[in-house]
Amino acid sequence: MEKEAFNLEILEKLIHEKNVIALRELFESIALIDIADVANHIDDPSELLFIFKTVKSEYTAEFFSYLAPEVQEKLVRLFTDKDLMTLIASSYTDDIADFLIDMPSNLVERVLNVTDKQTREVVNLLLNYKVNTAGSIMTTEYVTLNSVMTVEEALNAIRKIGREAETVYTNFVIDDQRNLVGTVALDDLIFSEPNQRLTEIMATDFTAVEVTTDQEEVARDFKRYNLNAMPVLNEDHRLVGIVTVDDVIDVIEQQVSEDMAKMAAVSPLEDSYIKSSVWTLAKKCIPWLIILLVLGIGASIVLNVFENSLAVLPILAAFIPILMDGGGNAGNQTTVLVTRSLALNEITPKDFLKVIWKEMRISLIVSAFVGLFAFGWVLFEFGSGILEYDALAGLSVWSWFAQASIVAALVAFTLAGAIILSKTIGAVLPLAAKAVGLDPAVVASPLLTTIVDVCALLLYFFLSASVFNLL
Amino acid sequence: MEKEAFNLEILEKLIHEKNVIALRELFESIALIDIADVANHIDDPSELLFIFKTVKSEYTAEFFSYLAPEVQEKLVRLFTDKDLMTLIASSYTDDIADFLIDMPSNLVERVLNVTDKQTREVVNLLLNYKVNTAGSIMTTEYVTLNSVMTVEEALNAIRKIGREAETVYTNFVIDDQRNLVGTVALDDLIFSEPNQRLTEIMATDFTAVEVTTDQEEVARDFKRYNLNAMPVLNEDHRLVGIVTVDDVIDVIEQQVSEDMAKMAAVSPLEDSYIKSSVWTLAKKCIPWLIILLVLGIGASIVLNVFENSLAVLPILAAFIPILMDGGGNAGNQTTVLVTRSLALNEITPKDFLKVIWKEMRISLIVSAFVGLFAFGWVLFEFGSGILEYDALAGLSVWSWFAQASIVAALVAFTLAGAIILSKTIGAVLPLAAKAVGLDPAVVASPLLTTIVDVCALLLYFFLSASVFNLL
Repeated sequence: MEKEAFNLEILEKLIHEKNVIALRELFESIALIDIADVANHIDDPSELLFIFKTVKSEYTAEFFSYLAPEVQEKLVRLFTDKDLMTLIASSYTDDIADFLIDMPSNLVERVLNVTDKQTREVVNLLLNYKVNTAGSIMTTEYVTLNSVMTVEEALNAIRKIGREAETVYTNFVIDDQRNLVGTVALDDLIFSEPNQRLTEIMATDFTAVEVTTDQEEVARDFKRYNLNAMPVLNEDHRLVGIVTVDDVIDVIEQQVSEDMAKMAAVSPLEDSYIKSSVWTLAKKCIPWLIILLVLGIGASIVLNVFENSLAVLPILAAFIPILMDGGGNAGNQTTVLVTRSLALNEITPKDFLKVIWKEMRISLIVSAFVGLFAFGWVLFEFGSGILEYDALAGLSVWSWFAQASIVAALVAFTLAGAIILSKTIGAVLPLAAKAVGLDPAVVASPLLTTIVDVCALLLYFFLSASVFNLL
Repeated sequence: MEKEAFNLEILEKLIHEKNVIALRELFESIALIDIADVANHIDDPSELLFIFKTVKSEYTAEFFSYLAPEVQEKLVRLFTDKDLMTLIASSYTDDIADFLIDMPSNLVERVLNVTDKQTREVVNLLLNYKVNTAGSIMTTEYVTLNSVMTVEEALNAIRKIGREAETVYTNFVIDDQRNLVGTVALDDLIFSEPNQRLTEIMATDFTAVEVTTDQEEVARDFKRYNLNAMPVLNEDHRLVGIVTVDDVIDVIEQQVSEDMAKMAAVSPLEDSYIKSSVWTLAKKCIPWLIILLVLGIGASIVLNVFENSLAVLPILAAFIPILMDGGGNAGNQTTVLVTRSLALNEITPKDFLKVIWKEMRISLIVSAFVGLFAFGWVLFEFGSGILEYDALAGLSVWSWFAQASIVAALVAFTLAGAIILSKTIGAVLPLAAKAVGLDPAVVASPLLTTIVDVCALLLYFFLSASVFNLL
């Protein structure tokens, strides 16, 4: 069947008609994730039971792993112990652990009860690794080969045990003490002579991580070395699991979502936006808004102190928003670029001077262009009457223009100053945060706005006070 | 050699001593990208020539692809035509195309001159595909198998032609008209009987893209279907190339960097931050700052119109920053979460009502908490004397407190209103942008701040005018 022609109606029809042959054909011809997407929308999950009774378990186990947690939960409640046992036996241990993490404890117990002892130990182990470590994303189904094997023996071993493994593209060569001594790719086995020894063809420059290694570091090494699978070692440097490339793509996506959330002043979500509850999302948003509100005290104090300037020259207030926003935006541009560059390991805190020097030059160019434009723009706002500017009393028409130009210049200079300052601070903050071991994404954005607001307003009022005292 | 023990000094020493054996051993034991990283820091690239003359070209071709463009350029100028020919012959066509894109045209010509006709045609083709399409990231080195082959014949074919291919883990089964009829994974070949036909074991539910398909769509399918390699078809639905998973990780990273830059009001960079020149970066920053400056006219007009309120009650000015920042931050939280969710395909514009309804409830909760806190916080600022509040003339002490409470309530209500408004708008904007085919990341952030600023200020002054008229 073509993917485009498949929909919920067809799935329900096949189930209602108990059309075993067409259902089996469906699971062979359409990607399981696409079927699961449709099946998630079925009203009564008990209808899905028919699928698990008729379609081969090698398909249903993977299909089950793509179902939504609430559908999975309902199904497990409906499964007999025998159904459950079949499902578990055909699933990868990391998929079982992933699915159990979201389940209520009585269901977890029931699932573990029907799981054979060996698998249960592995699943328990996986469930106990700290979130976001290599241990928590690794799988334990991989192929180990002994270093004394020949290529032919290795291929035979892979044919025998490889079907259970999550990948056979990278295989792991161990010595008698289970020490990892090399990796051998399936294509290298294919390209070699049957009687060659593994020690001759295996790669010894493999990259390995420990179970406690942060998953982001794992992802970095994967990208850097273009890996298919990476060995995970325990404290004794024995091989205990592997991480495969599909897990790593998930890690990259998750890490990016977290970074974006942090930069937007949201605490990282444990789940996707759409799966998180209203309460959870509110809880992630509130703390930062309150912190930023408290930090806003600086700008409030400045405006409070310079109340008189505003009373004498109320037009000054009209430009507070563009000065604050302009400074904040300019700084944010730099912060986001630098934070992202740090995340991609393109720069490190050692590049401090290089980056600052770069941003100082950038900010000079940017502030010159934007400042010049602001001067013209403010004059236009006055000249066109969009903004009303009543000159100080007793002046001629020429003086009105002169005063308006002075206000425009004041705005332009302050904006230019705020841009230079905020871009420099915007580069310093993430680098400094990273250097002292803090998260650049968390520290940089809130502090930046706060500092830039205060500085821009101070500059604005000091400049205006000194200029208008002279008038 | 251990990776940790290797550094620039050692590399230079080996080259100066012309230690051929140690150099060859180095290229076999250390990842080529790590050697290239060190080699990029060598002062005189001509020293690297010795490497290309002594180390096997199967290593040097990949090593070359990891070198920085400026080092590559210098080396190509130093290479004899024979050196170049060896290098090109051992390189993948997509790597050659990637490297030529950054080179001056006279060098491109020289490289193409020493390239054999067949490779040259392919490279030219790759160079001509539009940036960011499947065509521009695909490679043409892959294994095609004929559908009439048996497993044994297929494995023999792979042994014969597979070394030149970028991957043999996914192989492509074509009929006599070069129509793609299926894919067959290397492990499926290993697990099957030698005399089985490919048509029995090949997968027919493969996902393919066209040369003009956007690379982000390619990346989405890769993630969704956990692929190793994906076939690329031309307009006649004939197989012309494949995309491999390592290219896709690059696409994901690039896409994320672009999205982050757009959300921070920077036009997307063609290159990494560190490789982009000061001028380029300035040019990417200036337009958005000017657009935002122009859009800031709304807030300026509001403040200009309500000048008198500020003159009568100057304390109002002190809270402009927290109202603007608070509204902007709250809206930005929503915009970033929704934009990211759209990018990950977790939601589509069809979920419009669902998302709006969700954000309205979230914003009610958030605004209640933050508003309540703001009320207490402003009272504290007044009570502690951090902010000075001079009550309107002729009132008792109790009335001072009453008036301060009214100001605090005013700030709290405005902030709460701004949060509700900005979170709702923050959800509407990216969804609406996506629905009409615009880029959510570009549209949402700048418009959001502008609209929220104006709304928050209007609400603030209308509320304060009506409240203080009553006093």
